[in-house]
Amino acid sequence: MPSPYLLDVDTGIDDALAVAWMATHPEVDLVAATSIFGNVNTRQAARNTCDLLALLGRGDVPVAAGPDAAMGRRLGEDAAFVHGVNGIGEVELPRAGRDPEADLTAAEMIVRKAREHEGELHIVAVGPLTNLGLALQLEPELPRLVGKVTTMGGNVLVPGTNSARLDANTANDIDAAALVYAADWDITMVGLDVTMRNVLHAEQRARLESDGNRAVSSIGEMLRFYFGFYETIFGSPQCALHDPLAAAIATGDIVPTVAPKLPTFVDVSDGPEQGSTVVDARTMWRGFDIEPEDANVRVVLECGEDFGALLTERLLEV
Amino acid sequence: MPSPYLLDVDTGIDDALAVAWMATHPEVDLVAATSIFGNVNTRQAARNTCDLLALLGRGDVPVAAGPDAAMGRRLGEDAAFVHGVNGIGEVELPRAGRDPEADLTAAEMIVRKAREHEGELHIVAVGPLTNLGLALQLEPELPRLVGKVTTMGGNVLVPGTNSARLDANTANDIDAAALVYAADWDITMVGLDVTMRNVLHAEQRARLESDGNRAVSSIGEMLRFYFGFYETIFGSPQCALHDPLAAAIATGDIVPTVAPKLPTFVDVSDGPEQGSTVVDARTMWRGFDIEPEDANVRVVLECGEDFGALLTERLLEV
Repeated sequence: MPSPYLLDVDTGIDDALAVAWMATHPEVDLVAATSIFGNVNTRQAARNTCDLLALLGRGDVPVAAGPDAAMGRRLGEDAAFVHGVNGIGEVELPRAGRDPEADLTAAEMIVRKAREHEGELHIVAVGPLTNLGLALQLEPELPRLVGKVTTMGGNVLVPGTNSARLDANTANDIDAAALVYAADWDITMVGLDVTMRNVLHAEQRARLESDGNRAVSSIGEMLRFYFGFYETIFGSPQCALHDPLAAAIATGDIVPTVAPKLPTFVDVSDGPEQGSTVVDARTMWRGFDIEPEDANVRVVLECGEDFGALLTERLLEV
Repeated sequence: MPSPYLLDVDTGIDDALAVAWMATHPEVDLVAATSIFGNVNTRQAARNTCDLLALLGRGDVPVAAGPDAAMGRRLGEDAAFVHGVNGIGEVELPRAGRDPEADLTAAEMIVRKAREHEGELHIVAVGPLTNLGLALQLEPELPRLVGKVTTMGGNVLVPGTNSARLDANTANDIDAAALVYAADWDITMVGLDVTMRNVLHAEQRARLESDGNRAVSSIGEMLRFYFGFYETIFGSPQCALHDPLAAAIATGDIVPTVAPKLPTFVDVSDGPEQGSTVVDARTMWRGFDIEPEDANVRVVLECGEDFGALLTERLLEV
């Protein structure tokens, strides 16, 4: 029997991959999608999410939009140079024929679905953590109501993206991220340690683009743009798989090999690495099986590097 | 012909290994040693350095002591639990019969030797960077006068020692370290990325302790204490080789395999990771052969893991 999931996205090219993963997964009951700014503004992220869900035959999944501003400090900005002006690599999707919920914010949707599926809902938040932070403010009991949370963000034993230590999602709403990682729930952080090491290769992208399914071929086309950016990072035609990897870890298809629970917080100071996730991984020398007393977040540090192949195979089956 | 080196130490058990390495190296002209607080107070560090040099037959090397306080903020403290109350694992060395220079501070010694060996002196600073910071204040032309600087400190793709990101040497004088890494000279940082991965094993320590040379056997005995601490870190009988590895990289016996020049500074803010060295290693995904425009410090990230064997062999030849 499928389990209830809620996906929070700033769609976004790699978000599109996460949407496709979750919306077509046989063991996932996708009870809602919520959207936030980040890769693109919130309105466009919501539109992209609605359009993509429709194209995937999942126009039934309710979509609610968050605000177009951070709860707290924002050090990032919209990333048109990574995702295109429209967030999906300038690909034009057919319009879904519907808009996001008019009378329900993303935070309200999160709280509603958490109540409907008390103790069972798995929230997969792969954008800035604004909606989840607002939901925590709206319903202080949320950690008790929610089953699990998986985020995409942070970095421990690898550099950041926006600066030496800062990743884009956390940068986009520092104070929301601080609330989310400080909340008392079962939370797993999927960060750059694994998402930069799990890549899609050029020939995999080409297979997606030439697929007969319009949603899949559109995603393959979007990925052309994403590859353009990532070639400047990797120096070769491949792209990181941030958001879909977080989704695949949340659904249990990718099982992390090293994912200790570690003391984790967001640097909310005015220091030079403001907004970075600080993870105390000092137990690594002795072995991560020793859990520090103040460990609060499960942090994925290793999970193999074969997700690109699995993702391609699954999408070609859609 | 041996090259001129100056060794700055807070002796300290691993410092003792660095002293032995430098003082007995056929290609090293050890023109002076300077001492600073850190593992132990400055007076004791100077005494240990004098005593050890004498025992090594190098009573000729001048020793100058620095102050017993940081230039700036100090987050660390003396580390009797790591190095013993006397800094050398409670081992009693024969007294050297001499004290450090009475009328020359460590900073003055550094400036004097830099002038005497203009453009040639290689300073190896394996303790808190107070003496080097003070020397920079005393002689603003120091970067031009000095040939090279090698420090032990910092961490990039591994955790800190004192906190998630903070290493002990930098912690002990944050503002001095900030000056040293900001100075315009040829500087190499040997940090925890390599010093935690180059260890001495129990049977290597035992061989040192049973050696016929009194200096070497004393160091082997000191290392018992150090092993006691490091067993709590590694969970097995071995110890990190921080200071001697920095020395061996400075002398060219260990050649780093990955040591890019990267943008590097010390976090002097009041943030949670105050005092940590911030190294921007984002080029790692593309390849460290690309040098960022604002790169200022060569940072050793990999150098193999066999230094324990080389160190043991060399010490047994003393």
